[in-house]
Amino acid sequence: MTSLPFAAAQPQAGIPAARHAERLARARALAAEQGLDALLVGVGADLRYLAGYDALALERLTLLVVPVAGRPTLLAPRLEAAATAVAPAIASGEVHLETWEETDDPLLRVRDLLGDRAGRLAVSDRLAAHFLLGLQALMPDASWSLASAVVGRLRIVKDADEVALLERAAHAADQVIHEVVNGRLVGRTEADVAREIRDRLIAWGHDRADFAIVGSGPNSASPHHAASDRVIRPGEPIVLDIGGPMRGYGSDITRTVWVTGGDPTHGPDRGFLRLYGVLRGAQAEATHAVRPGVAAERIDLVARELISAAGYGQHFIHRTGHGIGLEEHEPPYIVAGNVEPIRPGMAFSVEPGIYLEGRYGARIEDIVVCAEDGPMVLNEASRDLLVVTG
Amino acid sequence: MTSLPFAAAQPQAGIPAARHAERLARARALAAEQGLDALLVGVGADLRYLAGYDALALERLTLLVVPVAGRPTLLAPRLEAAATAVAPAIASGEVHLETWEETDDPLLRVRDLLGDRAGRLAVSDRLAAHFLLGLQALMPDASWSLASAVVGRLRIVKDADEVALLERAAHAADQVIHEVVNGRLVGRTEADVAREIRDRLIAWGHDRADFAIVGSGPNSASPHHAASDRVIRPGEPIVLDIGGPMRGYGSDITRTVWVTGGDPTHGPDRGFLRLYGVLRGAQAEATHAVRPGVAAERIDLVARELISAAGYGQHFIHRTGHGIGLEEHEPPYIVAGNVEPIRPGMAFSVEPGIYLEGRYGARIEDIVVCAEDGPMVLNEASRDLLVVTG
Repeated sequence: MTSLPFAAAQPQAGIPAARHAERLARARALAAEQGLDALLVGVGADLRYLAGYDALALERLTLLVVPVAGRPTLLAPRLEAAATAVAPAIASGEVHLETWEETDDPLLRVRDLLGDRAGRLAVSDRLAAHFLLGLQALMPDASWSLASAVVGRLRIVKDADEVALLERAAHAADQVIHEVVNGRLVGRTEADVAREIRDRLIAWGHDRADFAIVGSGPNSASPHHAASDRVIRPGEPIVLDIGGPMRGYGSDITRTVWVTGGDPTHGPDRGFLRLYGVLRGAQAEATHAVRPGVAAERIDLVARELISAAGYGQHFIHRTGHGIGLEEHEPPYIVAGNVEPIRPGMAFSVEPGIYLEGRYGARIEDIVVCAEDGPMVLNEASRDLLVVTG
Repeated sequence: MTSLPFAAAQPQAGIPAARHAERLARARALAAEQGLDALLVGVGADLRYLAGYDALALERLTLLVVPVAGRPTLLAPRLEAAATAVAPAIASGEVHLETWEETDDPLLRVRDLLGDRAGRLAVSDRLAAHFLLGLQALMPDASWSLASAVVGRLRIVKDADEVALLERAAHAADQVIHEVVNGRLVGRTEADVAREIRDRLIAWGHDRADFAIVGSGPNSASPHHAASDRVIRPGEPIVLDIGGPMRGYGSDITRTVWVTGGDPTHGPDRGFLRLYGVLRGAQAEATHAVRPGVAAERIDLVARELISAAGYGQHFIHRTGHGIGLEEHEPPYIVAGNVEPIRPGMAFSVEPGIYLEGRYGARIEDIVVCAEDGPMVLNEASRDLLVVTG
């Protein structure tokens, strides 16, 4: 391969091109407020957000240089010029495109572009150390911070178009859950079901299927479990946690299903029904706690207290949720210690779980947006324990 | 999703577990030679190489801390403990596993692990700025460099097991090329052919299909082109550039095919035949130039001089190749300015191309390993211009 893979430089359907100019203007204003001289934004979600340019992280430098005064410049390898030129903020002329040749040192070009503005610089959070250390060596007098202090403050609040994209992605993932739990499961391997999920996510419009956790039987008790060659048997639960980006914005849903294989004696046992009931209540109450002004950690605490009160506290071993948008995991994190107040437009997962190691477990996850008057739940798939023939 | 996606923590089939201990020992010795105190290796190819641990780059820190003296420690989120524990270097006890909880600050743990060895530190090239700036702030007196000066020196020379894995991946990609060029092409969109290629790469054993460039007609003249909704017509060339990792090691092959649609009047025109003949010769001669001691840039120059002599110099707009291994693109780069001598065990692409913008183009790419006595070409698919009905 000389250069680009599959889906690079897709225009961001659903986001008007003019939005990128607004975002850039807001980013520059906020950067100026923080006393920064420029933002240096590498490949990733920040670049997609500001310029609508979806490039893969290759070894060649692609960097959006946003001085607080003056026109932003996207520095990109010449090979990517055609792909770059169609990105909304480039096509509109909002961002100037400058390309570098195979034998150039692009970091020198960054220094030249900055000129005497190489003072207080903020780099995107995922910029590779390879580039950052190179820039630090070239501009030893500059100070360095994270651009998330600027771009993250913007990205954390979704506008109506972004919420609409998250909702479409959520509904597509709902459909996949519906199809998979109503299909055959018993006798198949987890990996085989994961493949089906991947195909269905794409068939329902996802750009990619980034994950398809299928945890059956004892594997349902491992929140980190992906999908193995274990064959699904009657009389056990399956945790399905699936998602990926659709038109750039992520889906992420978890449902727990119990398969009987058609044998009524293989229904859920009393212990599982109790566990699931506690979890269902905790997930509902945590969702219900979402409203403007509540601290992120409070939502975690609501779920944790209910689960602890029922005696499962030590079996809920992860945070309650994570933000979602142009990245599958992004702020705000719904975790103890995060006192950030939830604001309208913030979007995140609410996904408590209870895991009895070696035996079984369950998790329920929805994507929730904070609206002016409380939670707006994007997923519509039933949260009841789904007892199916499988 | 709480945590892990698809294929994380796959054991590195084909690489004996003990190999990781050897690699770690060599890395530590080389780091000591360079006066370093420790290597800090984040998620990515360096971590796969040293510890056999294939983790996805999530927002939670996973970091292998390798002091030049003392046992290496992998610091990982508790949620990933089970996945981490099966990684060869952890399972063997070579690397100590230390997990952090959701409410811990893992960067503080890194500082504690280093103790008074926080002097000269080298970080993996792709470590995110988010982590690097955090570490720099916690250890302001440390000096920072790139771990590629150590790990890259090891990774650039493949051992026999690695070459065998690259060869298997190459042969699988050969099969996909064979199947695709012998199937129907005319009347289909490039994107549809790309989907077929992705499915076939996976069917032939690839872990993922990372790219499937299908450039037909005028798109064959854009080396950066991916695959569009353009419908393939009789009487035009198609550049197919495909690959992805197989058991962790990459494939990458390009072939150019001409489709006639079964109409003999739609064969390649004289101009294309000349262009292809020049390219074929340049690719063969550049491959032939591979031998121990030759400078990387010399291989580029061989191809470039032949193409220039035929009058196409300005139409060969990219370097001749890139190294391949645990990453699709890695050193050595076969590009002007890279005077690094090629050594036995180095593996890279040889992929000149000629692109007549707006009209058509062609590229031929093989993966080549430098053997003691010259080039060992891993791909076996014919490099003749394939004129097919399509």
